[in-house]
Amino acid sequence: MSVSPLLDKLIDSLQILPGVGPKSAQRLAFYLLERNQQGARDLADVIATAIDEIGHCQQCRTLTEDAICSLCSNPGRDDSMLCIVENPSDVMLMNKVTGYKGLYFVLMGHLSPLDGIGPEELGLADLAKRLDNGGIKELILATNSTVEGEATAHYIHEMARKRQIRTTRLAHGVPMGGELEYVDGGTLSYAFQGRQDI
Amino acid sequence: MSVSPLLDKLIDSLQILPGVGPKSAQRLAFYLLERNQQGARDLADVIATAIDEIGHCQQCRTLTEDAICSLCSNPGRDDSMLCIVENPSDVMLMNKVTGYKGLYFVLMGHLSPLDGIGPEELGLADLAKRLDNGGIKELILATNSTVEGEATAHYIHEMARKRQIRTTRLAHGVPMGGELEYVDGGTLSYAFQGRQDI
Repeated sequence: MSVSPLLDKLIDSLQILPGVGPKSAQRLAFYLLERNQQGARDLADVIATAIDEIGHCQQCRTLTEDAICSLCSNPGRDDSMLCIVENPSDVMLMNKVTGYKGLYFVLMGHLSPLDGIGPEELGLADLAKRLDNGGIKELILATNSTVEGEATAHYIHEMARKRQIRTTRLAHGVPMGGELEYVDGGTLSYAFQGRQDI
Repeated sequence: MSVSPLLDKLIDSLQILPGVGPKSAQRLAFYLLERNQQGARDLADVIATAIDEIGHCQQCRTLTEDAICSLCSNPGRDDSMLCIVENPSDVMLMNKVTGYKGLYFVLMGHLSPLDGIGPEELGLADLAKRLDNGGIKELILATNSTVEGEATAHYIHEMARKRQIRTTRLAHGVPMGGELEYVDGGTLSYAFQGRQDI
């Protein structure tokens, strides 16, 4: 459409990014070409390198450029606790805000039979082996509190129960700073049942 | 923050894109690494090639990988008409929706003294030479209808007036499909003054 086939190609390529349509792609392309050529060069380099080098940790399946990620290979962490999360971003978040010192296992998704994502795709065979090896005293289920996340947590809970491993789930309750009025009924009911002495 | 310095670098780099903050950058990075590795590789290639090869047309200043863009070098276009626009995207748009068959001159911005953008930065010296060379019978001012766009149009109009070249400006009026109630007063006043026989 433009006078430059290469510019058209750049605008097309930028549209692979989720949430970027034709208009924003055009804006991004002009920005890169006109305002930030060095940034654009660096971005191209980093994307190419990242795609080539980043894979999955052989132990916890998170995204990393190492065979075993720095969390799994850290001898200072408590390997009797294993926290199951859906995504690498959840690892970052848990690490940042909780004082958790155990290990992680990253499912890279949740059970979703309609999309062809079963136990196989989530690496649950590896998880089973790891549970069989012994040494894990607590399995913390930190999958999302969505229907799929709950179903996945339930499935993994069954795996742990068979092996008589203690399983815990993140607590539901009133968000900090939240007003009761805006908390949904299910959450409030959990918060009430889980009330604690002060 | 993550277990992968390279992933952190990718997330940082993606934030050079306008409108992309830390959260969206993380989402984009996971998408590229997990869902669309081929698309990501292509994107990196295209960005690098585009930055290296795309420059400005020597004649109209639009973005192109050629020395002279395909519009300027097209003998089928009417070189007695010159349309002044702010951005390469305006060239694409005008070409797509109007039947205009003349040539363009792309300012790559508008006069903005506070940002250090004067006549020099907009290539107005080149434009003056082109007007001096003769042959241009109509100069169409299609800068944006913003304060800066109007000021820029006014400045260029003065250049054309000194050389006694006819200058036109895009018409103001009621947008197609628009209700009068939602049209601002200035626009409605222009639309009234510019009313046409039916």
